[in-house]
Amino acid sequence: MGHDGFMVGAARLPGVTVRAVPSAAVRAVAVLGTGVVDAEAAVLGADDLGLTRGDGCFEATRVWTGVDGEHRVDHLEPHLDRFGASCAALQLPAPDRAGWRELIGQLLAGWTEPGEAMLKLMLSRGRESQPDGPVTGIATLAPVTARVLRQREGISALTLGRGTSSDAYADAPWLLGGVKSLSYAVNVAAIRVAQQRGADDVIFTSSDGFVLEAPTAAVLWFAGGRLLTTPTGGTGILASITQQALFTEAERDGVRTGYALGTVEELHAADGVWLASSGRGVAPVHTLDGRPLRIPAEFSARLAALAGF
Amino acid sequence: MGHDGFMVGAARLPGVTVRAVPSAAVRAVAVLGTGVVDAEAAVLGADDLGLTRGDGCFEATRVWTGVDGEHRVDHLEPHLDRFGASCAALQLPAPDRAGWRELIGQLLAGWTEPGEAMLKLMLSRGRESQPDGPVTGIATLAPVTARVLRQREGISALTLGRGTSSDAYADAPWLLGGVKSLSYAVNVAAIRVAQQRGADDVIFTSSDGFVLEAPTAAVLWFAGGRLLTTPTGGTGILASITQQALFTEAERDGVRTGYALGTVEELHAADGVWLASSGRGVAPVHTLDGRPLRIPAEFSARLAALAGF
Repeated sequence: MGHDGFMVGAARLPGVTVRAVPSAAVRAVAVLGTGVVDAEAAVLGADDLGLTRGDGCFEATRVWTGVDGEHRVDHLEPHLDRFGASCAALQLPAPDRAGWRELIGQLLAGWTEPGEAMLKLMLSRGRESQPDGPVTGIATLAPVTARVLRQREGISALTLGRGTSSDAYADAPWLLGGVKSLSYAVNVAAIRVAQQRGADDVIFTSSDGFVLEAPTAAVLWFAGGRLLTTPTGGTGILASITQQALFTEAERDGVRTGYALGTVEELHAADGVWLASSGRGVAPVHTLDGRPLRIPAEFSARLAALAGF
Repeated sequence: MGHDGFMVGAARLPGVTVRAVPSAAVRAVAVLGTGVVDAEAAVLGADDLGLTRGDGCFEATRVWTGVDGEHRVDHLEPHLDRFGASCAALQLPAPDRAGWRELIGQLLAGWTEPGEAMLKLMLSRGRESQPDGPVTGIATLAPVTARVLRQREGISALTLGRGTSSDAYADAPWLLGGVKSLSYAVNVAAIRVAQQRGADDVIFTSSDGFVLEAPTAAVLWFAGGRLLTTPTGGTGILASITQQALFTEAERDGVRTGYALGTVEELHAADGVWLASSGRGVAPVHTLDGRPLRIPAEFSARLAALAGF
């Protein structure tokens, strides 16, 4: 148990909390089976397993709103596919895709602010006191934050051990490898540690020395003429939709791609390292553990553009 | 990612969920800063970090209510101490103990059902949209379930790997070892797997072959004339208040106790194995991975009584 508990930029005051990570100003909320509700409203019961056990899953993707009020949701179907895969791994019923699409439509109907926002879908197992009750489904919209926009230009990262080996999740479905679960306390704790040590984000490493993923992003690197990322499966990492979409576009554009286990030293030696996620797109890592990394500026811009950023 | 997704005793129907674990009928709810609310009421915002990230911690303990309506809360101060330790590790402000005591008092004032109930305290980092807002605090009461009462008599357990070594949490505070966090998806997934394989509960093991803890209990075993349990710290396990209270009483009663790393084979060879938790007390494990374990009936009853069960 780590009780050093130091803080940067915030006093430890009783009753005052610290939300360095993440801080999105949710401005629109809709509940499955209910529809759009006041964004300030309480929507979850005290015995909802999403709260009591972090027992559920989520998805997040970007929404573009044009000046004409038209919306474009990035990769909605792959996100609903992954939502379904998370549900299956959690032994939850498959998400009602038509219901979610309708809910998202209702939420977007009231969203007219031009520019980028993040759409988040959350699904929990429901209330403990209603064993035969429905799952809880919530969709939220929040403008893309200044921090995300800034980090698209470049990220400083810190490597932190994840405590598991690169094959720890093979044949261990109860460890929920590859599941985008609501149990993200370790992910945000790691980002807090990075921020307190002066970095923006984290690259998790396995106990046997390999690069895994960032707490909310995939890690990509360019080496030996190929754009590489860590394989899913035994590593337990999440299948990244941004990375998959980028790899498809990159191959079409003549960039060779592949999956490989890489070490931190291989990142330092690489011709570019990026974090890929639905909010930041493909963001170059300019510093790793305090050491500057090469950023091939033109190639970096090309990758971001190929990913739609 | 494990997609086998088979279920026992429940069809996989869209919109119908499965809550084999846990299933408490919460009957009373109080919110820090508000007081007692309707148990059915929604109390949590859609952007509460307790939901969005499982970013918070909890405590659970037993409440005895007499026929005269008097209440006895088991080990409240040690639970508040551990609550504070979890908050410190999560870099949350120390819990307002006076406020929590008052909230618990308000909740118990309306609770007259004689017998045992479980009191649960939950604290999250609060709402993402209110970066300077308060933490969220919720207390609930639920009667002790029939499953818990039944399992006090004996438990069949399955060993499942936790994916981490017995020293993985040393010097890695971001992994939140020893923190009773709201991110318990893996804990409940493991219990689901056990139930589907015909067992009641799980004993997690480390990747280097040692016994860690159960998803919601400490593991005790009697060997070489001593009552043993796994050390906290590098193992990442939670400090069990039931186990600590029992060890104190057991030493007073002439039973030698100690902390040790043990293997699964040592459990099979032991003169008794128990799971210790605030709800089930000190419950004997009669079967491990399908093989019967010795239960010294008299000693087992003595341990339960020493723990107040």
